[in-house]
Amino acid sequence: MKRALGVCYYPEHWPEEKWAEDAALMARTGLVWVRIGEFAWSRLEPQPGQLDFAWLDRAIETLGAAGLKVVLGTPTATPPRWMLDQHPDMLAVDREGRTRKFGSRRHYCFSHIGYRKACARIVTLLAERYGRNRHVAAWQTDNEYGCHDTVISYSDAARAEFRNWLAQRYQSPQALNRAWGNVFWSMDYESFEQIDLPNLTVCEANPAHEMAFRRFSSDQVVSFNRLQTEILRRHTDAPIIHNYMSRYTDFDHFDVGADLDIASWDSYPLGHLITRTDASEEDKKHYLRQGDPDNQAFHHDLYRAVGKGRWWIMEQQPGPVNWADYNPAPLPGMARLWAWEAFAHGAEAVCYFRWRQAPFAQEQMHAGLLRPDSEPAPALAEAAQVAQELADMPEVETGKADAAIIFDYPSAWAWSIQPQGKDFDYVALVFAYYRAMRQLGLNIDIVPASDPDIARYKLVAIPGLMTVPERLSAQLERFEGVVLAGPRTGCKTEEFSIPVPLPPALPGLDTRVAYVESLPPDAPVALEAGGHFMSWREKLEGSAEALERCSDGWPALVGSGRMFYVGGWGDRVALSRIVGMACRRAGIETLNLPRDVRVRTTATHRFYFNYGGEQIAFAGNDLAPGGVGWERL
Amino acid sequence: MKRALGVCYYPEHWPEEKWAEDAALMARTGLVWVRIGEFAWSRLEPQPGQLDFAWLDRAIETLGAAGLKVVLGTPTATPPRWMLDQHPDMLAVDREGRTRKFGSRRHYCFSHIGYRKACARIVTLLAERYGRNRHVAAWQTDNEYGCHDTVISYSDAARAEFRNWLAQRYQSPQALNRAWGNVFWSMDYESFEQIDLPNLTVCEANPAHEMAFRRFSSDQVVSFNRLQTEILRRHTDAPIIHNYMSRYTDFDHFDVGADLDIASWDSYPLGHLITRTDASEEDKKHYLRQGDPDNQAFHHDLYRAVGKGRWWIMEQQPGPVNWADYNPAPLPGMARLWAWEAFAHGAEAVCYFRWRQAPFAQEQMHAGLLRPDSEPAPALAEAAQVAQELADMPEVETGKADAAIIFDYPSAWAWSIQPQGKDFDYVALVFAYYRAMRQLGLNIDIVPASDPDIARYKLVAIPGLMTVPERLSAQLERFEGVVLAGPRTGCKTEEFSIPVPLPPALPGLDTRVAYVESLPPDAPVALEAGGHFMSWREKLEGSAEALERCSDGWPALVGSGRMFYVGGWGDRVALSRIVGMACRRAGIETLNLPRDVRVRTTATHRFYFNYGGEQIAFAGNDLAPGGVGWERL
Amino acid sequence: MKRALGVCYYPEHWPEEKWAEDAALMARTGLVWVRIGEFAWSRLEPQPGQLDFAWLDRAIETLGAAGLKVVLGTPTATPPRWMLDQHPDMLAVDREGRTRKFGSRRHYCFSHIGYRKACARIVTLLAERYGRNRHVAAWQTDNEYGCHDTVISYSDAARAEFRNWLAQRYQSPQALNRAWGNVFWSMDYESFEQIDLPNLTVCEANPAHEMAFRRFSSDQVVSFNRLQTEILRRHTDAPIIHNYMSRYTDFDHFDVGADLDIASWDSYPLGHLITRTDASEEDKKHYLRQGDPDNQAFHHDLYRAVGKGRWWIMEQQPGPVNWADYNPAPLPGMARLWAWEAFAHGAEAVCYFRWRQAPFAQEQMHAGLLRPDSEPAPALAEAAQVAQELADMPEVETGKADAAIIFDYPSAWAWSIQPQGKDFDYVALVFAYYRAMRQLGLNIDIVPASDPDIARYKLVAIPGLMTVPERLSAQLERFEGVVLAGPRTGCKTEEFSIPVPLPPALPGLDTRVAYVESLPPDAPVALEAGGHFMSWREKLEGSAEALERCSDGWPALVGSGRMFYVGGWGDRVALSRIVGMACRRAGIETLNLPRDVRVRTTATHRFYFNYGGEQIAFAGNDLAPGGVGWERL
Ligand SMILES: [Zn+2]
Ligand SMILES: [Zn+2]
Ligand SMILES: [Zn+2]
Repeated sequence: MKRALGVCYYPEHWPEEKWAEDAALMARTGLVWVRIGEFAWSRLEPQPGQLDFAWLDRAIETLGAAGLKVVLGTPTATPPRWMLDQHPDMLAVDREGRTRKFGSRRHYCFSHIGYRKACARIVTLLAERYGRNRHVAAWQTDNEYGCHDTVISYSDAARAEFRNWLAQRYQSPQALNRAWGNVFWSMDYESFEQIDLPNLTVCEANPAHEMAFRRFSSDQVVSFNRLQTEILRRHTDAPIIHNYMSRYTDFDHFDVGADLDIASWDSYPLGHLITRTDASEEDKKHYLRQGDPDNQAFHHDLYRAVGKGRWWIMEQQPGPVNWADYNPAPLPGMARLWAWEAFAHGAEAVCYFRWRQAPFAQEQMHAGLLRPDSEPAPALAEAAQVAQELADMPEVETGKADAAIIFDYPSAWAWSIQPQGKDFDYVALVFAYYRAMRQLGLNIDIVPASDPDIARYKLVAIPGLMTVPERLSAQLERFEGVVLAGPRTGCKTEEFSIPVPLPPALPGLDTRVAYVESLPPDAPVALEAGGHFMSWREKLEGSAEALERCSDGWPALVGSGRMFYVGGWGDRVALSRIVGMACRRAGIETLNLPRDVRVRTTATHRFYFNYGGEQIAFAGNDLAPGGVGWERL
Repeated sequence: MKRALGVCYYPEHWPEEKWAEDAALMARTGLVWVRIGEFAWSRLEPQPGQLDFAWLDRAIETLGAAGLKVVLGTPTATPPRWMLDQHPDMLAVDREGRTRKFGSRRHYCFSHIGYRKACARIVTLLAERYGRNRHVAAWQTDNEYGCHDTVISYSDAARAEFRNWLAQRYQSPQALNRAWGNVFWSMDYESFEQIDLPNLTVCEANPAHEMAFRRFSSDQVVSFNRLQTEILRRHTDAPIIHNYMSRYTDFDHFDVGADLDIASWDSYPLGHLITRTDASEEDKKHYLRQGDPDNQAFHHDLYRAVGKGRWWIMEQQPGPVNWADYNPAPLPGMARLWAWEAFAHGAEAVCYFRWRQAPFAQEQMHAGLLRPDSEPAPALAEAAQVAQELADMPEVETGKADAAIIFDYPSAWAWSIQPQGKDFDYVALVFAYYRAMRQLGLNIDIVPASDPDIARYKLVAIPGLMTVPERLSAQLERFEGVVLAGPRTGCKTEEFSIPVPLPPALPGLDTRVAYVESLPPDAPVALEAGGHFMSWREKLEGSAEALERCSDGWPALVGSGRMFYVGGWGDRVALSRIVGMACRRAGIETLNLPRDVRVRTTATHRFYFNYGGEQIAFAGNDLAPGGVGWERL
Repeated sequence: MKRALGVCYYPEHWPEEKWAEDAALMARTGLVWVRIGEFAWSRLEPQPGQLDFAWLDRAIETLGAAGLKVVLGTPTATPPRWMLDQHPDMLAVDREGRTRKFGSRRHYCFSHIGYRKACARIVTLLAERYGRNRHVAAWQTDNEYGCHDTVISYSDAARAEFRNWLAQRYQSPQALNRAWGNVFWSMDYESFEQIDLPNLTVCEANPAHEMAFRRFSSDQVVSFNRLQTEILRRHTDAPIIHNYMSRYTDFDHFDVGADLDIASWDSYPLGHLITRTDASEEDKKHYLRQGDPDNQAFHHDLYRAVGKGRWWIMEQQPGPVNWADYNPAPLPGMARLWAWEAFAHGAEAVCYFRWRQAPFAQEQMHAGLLRPDSEPAPALAEAAQVAQELADMPEVETGKADAAIIFDYPSAWAWSIQPQGKDFDYVALVFAYYRAMRQLGLNIDIVPASDPDIARYKLVAIPGLMTVPERLSAQLERFEGVVLAGPRTGCKTEEFSIPVPLPPALPGLDTRVAYVESLPPDAPVALEAGGHFMSWREKLEGSAEALERCSDGWPALVGSGRMFYVGGWGDRVALSRIVGMACRRAGIETLNLPRDVRVRTTATHRFYFNYGGEQIAFAGNDLAPGGVGWERL
């Protein structure tokens, strides 16, 4: 399949006269895909039962006639105002107990049965009408599940469904009490009806209670999405996609992904960098107009895993946006670079968001490929250039990776429930390992803990994995590559207890975490070999050899031939050295990249990306600021 | 009319035996005005319908007998506790949905019809009794509208009135949907009864929705005040005043001012500096005991405009206060300097707040002219000195200004709804232009955008004006002076959309804002000529000449002969140069003032103020720390 | 009585088979006391009225048989879930009006009558059953009153009881209006039923209103505790204890202590340092693994006063805990040092919290003497060493102190209600004086303002005491030692007004606070003799001699022979000099201690403590990091 560009478009926002003109310019620019419809419910059904699909018929026909392929979104992220008259209790409730009102989007609780039925009805109507439409070549379910913190709801509907979920999982209150350790502080329950949602407790709720609620909340998204995919599959063979968000972990993307054909994500590199708490102030300034050089790649690799190999960028930032604390303009060239970084990681499509900047409502300050006055914005020419360049490139392909990192949503929930040190963040920890590998020039795969398949790799990193599942444990037993685990790996049971024997309990590695400590930002612990442990450190005991030590003698890295455990959160210097050691032991070749340069290798090409604001010469490539280069292998 | 001093007094707080003694000392100090009554409702009407005006009769008589002129306040800012039994739903509700309870002051929602009727009743009773009283020489309506964030209420009363207001403004839900762009995210309404207040929405509400609510909230204050002025005018010819607060923009002061005879404001220079987010840490420390050297002047000029030429200081800080994060003591002399700065700007009266420090209740740590033990506080002697000095001065007069700045309350609402960069603040932007002009020694007028009259000026600055109204636009066409507009001027329609053609669309200036970017504090953009754009920058296109450029080539200042547009938020260095250029083109002479010195020129005198902690010699004046000097022209 | 070690134990958490083994190891380690039962209600009464005391009988017997003495806790801090079915309105409500739900602990409002009755019932049952049990040698009431901010509740139950309390105190609404100054802002009440709790008012409530509510809230804890002590005393002669928390002032510990035999507190030095706002960042880092060198001693001296001479540590941190922002591991040796510091201050017992780290529920990351796998944690050996060392020491004794500091809970409420400067904190002020004395090597007594007995001291410091009570005032008249008062001493009446004549009105000292100022952190005022006043400064007038002055001439320290007043908040340099002067005048010998060393003298020994991370030689002692030394006098 040929790699392709696309764009997000809202025909309902513009006079019908403009549609054909817009479609023609899209085609001329080289765009292939156009996503529509995902917020249009109030125009498809202005009043309950009064359906108006005629305009959508015409819009699809107009776009299709121009040669474009349509991604049709189900409009369930924006129920019309009249829906509230039918279901006044469908709104989500926040942690403080406040009902989250109508007037923007995503105003629904995933647990509300009545709203689910309404969704099933509109999706069925759309699927029946457009399931075999020759221009509708893909479907999107809802939009950005979880955006604006909408997965976790403390509504009455959520409480009722949580109790059902608990009853299914534990079968008896006594079993639940035992699993959660409710003897502690006399928290025992005698019936599932006594169990409330874990907000507004006097002090923190039992972490097992919180964890169960997080598992439940994620499962609600999965079943909400599955309701739609099951309907769609009855009427269409087109691939079904959802557009995920970056660094968003409130539901398990792998679980939702199991019901999709393609995973996609919405990539806004500048806003992501500004709002990310684990980026240094210096990096935020240095990459202000380029975005973090590793964050997009990390998500490309993640969603390739979520999509079981097939993935897109559904929304690509084209210029300044409206939602970050500060919204700078990208460096010229970035709209091209970001697209190529995605294609180099195996993306089938990259769609810019959005076609024309809307002059009204919430996103009026969000750039598009066109300005509000329909003149081209800077990204339009960059998109056209990418379209041109794609013509000369081979079909979609993905590079082989020697190294993998295990990623696990429940671990993100666990450490947000129990950080133990104020700033402990699971995604930041995994990302630190990812960055260390990428700065060494590696191709990397992300692998889910729940469904691993690690035999093909030379090196697997497992940082911070709450519980090592049976299947992964069994694979580790047989694994012939190098394993780099820790800190905080395998340190909880599924029910959020400390396992005995003590963690990490890795096959063939005699080491135990006797206790842990968390550290303030200004009190890192130096390592003898250079660099520091920041934030987190573990006291390791056992016979495993200490390959590195802290300045006060605590073992920092223990292990042997193929199994290693890191007893703390290494800073860049430490992680670069430790990952480098692991690569050497695994027989993986590494590069020595300049700060701003990244590489990615496909089956046929090696790509070079310059995330810096200065011209750089590297490996024979002359890379302009924000420049991309490639060579055939 | 002679300039005069005054004081705020609460006879109900003190034994009646003390009143005559207090009045005598006031008169001896040289005070002319005494404001009373504005919080006394519970003593005027201890129980519903049980009126007790006798003590107020005696208080007014006692003060009048000592030669003092009374400003009588309507007591509607502090309804007694029994009012809540009659109107349990009269309380305001905050953005989080919490009812704001009795137990301090301003415990009412401006939209509550029942409370409005109760206000009309007590104001009528007061007006009837004191409207022709020979000692009552002025009236004050209510007290500090908006203090403690009380303009914006999310109560049921506010929601009901908002729907009425919307119905009046838009006439049909369809017109409202079109105006707001509600097609975006399926936010369409079918009836006005479906529209809620824009709080607690899942993510931000439509900015047009927010803006309508802000306009409505301001209008509610205007009509609440008008209810009182209409009653008062039926019974008195004395001037009607309201006391506004500094840097407070939640309602349109010009609109309220249209119903007043005199505008007044409450000046607390030390607290204002400490709580102001746009002052630098260095300035906050340097001016800790003096207050910002430009902030009071800015408000003097603002309220002269609000009062259509007639204005007072109704409350002047005399010593340490109680409400800022930190409450330092003023430098000796400041109670005199602040008064003279006001008189130099045309104030008719300056009233110190308050006569005697109350030893009880919320403001017990707020200094007065007397201490709680009735001994003189330091400001008493300074007030006496000012009274003495006033004797030798001419009548009230206002200096002529060559330069004007447009100020507009809706713009403040707009940019607080849509800052686009986290720290964008309209008042701070306007103040940056004001400061640049004042540091060049200019007399400055503030001019409302809604009712401008700019023909008399040589230079008009228009920073950040959301929408350029028809009348101003027409005046700009004919204007012969220099115009300095931008950034963000004219960039929205009245309904909060981006206009096409793109802004600023100024007459005779071919420039367009292609897109904008907001910048973090540590990432300003250097200008070729020195200084920086901070926070905000615009990409300007068009044929207008670029007079200054950013270091990356973007035009920074474009324009020609008389019309200029600044494409960013200039720091002090940049704004000083740009405003200096505009002055030269406008033929306005400028001064080169030391950091701590400010000047103000009236028809007959030039005044010099030393806001520094050190002695300064300037232009032949020897200015002590906190010192004032003047010379006849 | 011999000093003794102990531990907190939860037999209900572990299989009954383990109890005897645990008890044996406790005894072998040298532990004497074991506290149990305080969270076990759901296991003592799984359903309403269905009591199961058999397991507790066996647990007590097993522990007793091993030679251990039991402290039995009443379980009222953790009512079972079924209690809510009986009393749905028993939950506390927070300042924002949110009900604080079940799911952790302390889920009750102290004012709920129904819950009080339920507590009386369970305490009676326990007292009847175990009051004469030969192994139960002490009782603990409830657990950590106030933990998780649970003293102050805005529930309906609290409002009803507050009105009763007000009616008792003031007898008529008119008297209350006069006492509070409700004439201010028309806040007068006509009946007690009109008075609400002082939360969610439009701006701050009357400080007298807040103060009354704080007094009431404290009294509710006192009567709640008394209900239990009265029942217990009817059935047992064993001493009754409560375990207080450090730096917690929401109720009056002296008032609760009046009903106890022994005061105890829960000492977590590392978490306390990290969460304390008045510790410098440098100190937080330097003492990260040792805790503040003065904070534990301060509380030892405080609780010795609360316990009228008899006091314990009920919970002693043994390793990393779970609840601070960061949770580092203690330096080796600290579990021993902390115990010895307590014994040197006169503790009868030090109990480590807890025996075995629980692998489940909220405190799973809280270290114990044993790890979750029952292996010894580092503190076990340190406890054993202390037990060994105790054998050679004399009986419990307390050193004589020449210096005393007055401590007063209402003053803490007053300054939290009216800090006047954002960071003014009463405990921090008192602690600054304490630290200055302790760094000079003094033994110090803490003395309650309400029940002072100062004749025995050579020096008494009285910083920040809101109101000087009659009895203290009378004692000061006759006192022959040196008094060091201020700042902010005696500056309010009991009803939160400024007294006239102005403060401090100390016998024999002609000085008056004309006014005060609060200062931002970056604007301290230098003293002529060195050091600064930070945060707070007072303008002193009167004939008392100025012994020190500020750089701008304000008197900083006034006084003569035996009575001194400090007109500001001295930094370390200033307070060290001023306290040193006072010691010299009082004839108290002082030491010149290195930064990390502290001493404490008992009747027979002088103890040396090294809170530093380096070896120190001092006064002939070689002190390891975290080391303790002692010498016979
Ligand atoms: Zn989004
Ligand atoms: Zn105010
Ligand atoms: Zn606690």
